[in-house]
Amino acid sequence: VLVTGASGFIARRCLEPLVRAGYDVHAVSSRAMRGDDVEVDARVRWHKVDLLDIPQIGPLISSIRPSHLLHAAWIATPGAFWASEKNVSWLLSSVELVRQFFVNGGTRALGVGTCAEYEWGKNDCREGLTPVLPSTPYGQCKAAACFALEAAAGLFQGTWAWARLFLPYGPGEPQSRLIPSVICALLRGDTVELSHGAQVRDFVYIDDVADALVKILSSNVRGAINVGSGVGLSLRDVVALITARLGGAGLVRFGARPTPAGDPARVVADIGRLERELGWQPAFTTEAGIDHTIAAWRARLV
Amino acid sequence: VLVTGASGFIARRCLEPLVRAGYDVHAVSSRAMRGDDVEVDARVRWHKVDLLDIPQIGPLISSIRPSHLLHAAWIATPGAFWASEKNVSWLLSSVELVRQFFVNGGTRALGVGTCAEYEWGKNDCREGLTPVLPSTPYGQCKAAACFALEAAAGLFQGTWAWARLFLPYGPGEPQSRLIPSVICALLRGDTVELSHGAQVRDFVYIDDVADALVKILSSNVRGAINVGSGVGLSLRDVVALITARLGGAGLVRFGARPTPAGDPARVVADIGRLERELGWQPAFTTEAGIDHTIAAWRARLV
Repeated sequence: VLVTGASGFIARRCLEPLVRAGYDVHAVSSRAMRGDDVEVDARVRWHKVDLLDIPQIGPLISSIRPSHLLHAAWIATPGAFWASEKNVSWLLSSVELVRQFFVNGGTRALGVGTCAEYEWGKNDCREGLTPVLPSTPYGQCKAAACFALEAAAGLFQGTWAWARLFLPYGPGEPQSRLIPSVICALLRGDTVELSHGAQVRDFVYIDDVADALVKILSSNVRGAINVGSGVGLSLRDVVALITARLGGAGLVRFGARPTPAGDPARVVADIGRLERELGWQPAFTTEAGIDHTIAAWRARLV
Repeated sequence: VLVTGASGFIARRCLEPLVRAGYDVHAVSSRAMRGDDVEVDARVRWHKVDLLDIPQIGPLISSIRPSHLLHAAWIATPGAFWASEKNVSWLLSSVELVRQFFVNGGTRALGVGTCAEYEWGKNDCREGLTPVLPSTPYGQCKAAACFALEAAAGLFQGTWAWARLFLPYGPGEPQSRLIPSVICALLRGDTVELSHGAQVRDFVYIDDVADALVKILSSNVRGAINVGSGVGLSLRDVVALITARLGGAGLVRFGARPTPAGDPARVVADIGRLERELGWQPAFTTEAGIDHTIAAWRARLV
């Protein structure tokens, strides 16, 4: 299996489960392969390639000729990724990547998509029912990449799936995102300024995401499939779980920051497809996931 | 305005209306610019560039710096286009084209889409209501290109529209497609073998398509908009219009060819958006369109 974005938050957590599942794992990253922030399994072969440099994609794939592809690489800079021009660059690279994958004999590809492809409304997002109507360049380019993957797979008699991730969290998440920023501030005794906090989201622990991705890749599931916890929690609920462990509820100031324009009230996954077709359920409660995340930050900040 | 695919069936018919509408028209084609099959208006400036050669796109756009883009170039080889690998190539080129267009100061882009982006069902296809659920690589790559255009326009504060064409016909249509093949066979006294012929389609005359495209480009309409006649005719109905002019009904053998797998019973446009927002109606009845098409083939075959 070729894993892209392999030093990123999502994919690097998939490497060890993929090795355990018996895959010969080739990891691609534009970043250094051995650093503080990438746990390296000796059984993983690393390729330092910047996939945004499109002419490098063909030679990379033809030298490895993977049967499976887990394509997680994309711009993920917190905040900036929603409206970055790099979304268009990653779309271009993704189209070329999936084409080269199937041209070179690949048979099964899994792409990492996003809940931001859906029209956000009152109901839980459901594959094939909730309209794909993304309102951001990030969601639009991911939706385009999904169609491109479907086309490439169809042209070369391959199979494909597209995991629409909701809100993964856990060890390794960039520190400026919600849960790490609250944890780190409270560990330091700093105040945290947040928006109103009533937004309901589907937080899913990173090890559950990795487990779901490996199971989807190894299955015959086709098309778009949600990966979430299936449970909606408000940001206030999540912060309360953190302050229940760390104290410092008085340091958290809801409403101190403006709510971003277009910030939806509720984004929650219907995970019925994952449950029915793969018998999958999240293994981590939010309480357990938050505990692991706190422990990881505590170890790192000491 | 930069017009891509300018020697093709759709776009070349837009050149003269664009000149009349006051545009400074730059036409791009990979084919010869002056040949039997391309009517050349002296006021149109031609650029011979193969847009599938992606490194040529940036220099082309930056040398012209168009304010408007009419992107019609795509693989259109009759029969083959549905499942050609070139669909992926045209997706790649289209993403780069729209990016370069907006990067170089472009403000308004219109892409040519297709009814094949829709899930084909019993009802007329309506923008924003009928699911975008293409079943072919052609429709999938067009749908992906639509999302890419939306993303690129949003990133660069441009505006965009995407014309989902139903079944354009008329002078200049490739001879192997339904209407020309029936006309040419009957003009020669040959037999024609067709499938059952009960399929209902939305045929729209090429001059109506060109008129709609120029009006959409010149408007502020945003997003996907259907371009069709709004009228469903069976293939038998259309052939009957031809034999009413040319005779030879006995030469047409319905059912002599198998129906392609997945051939939908009905594909008809809801053109309410075009009517409401642009006051547009087709100017040609099917009878008039067929008459013009017969006249053009008669002149060409003589």
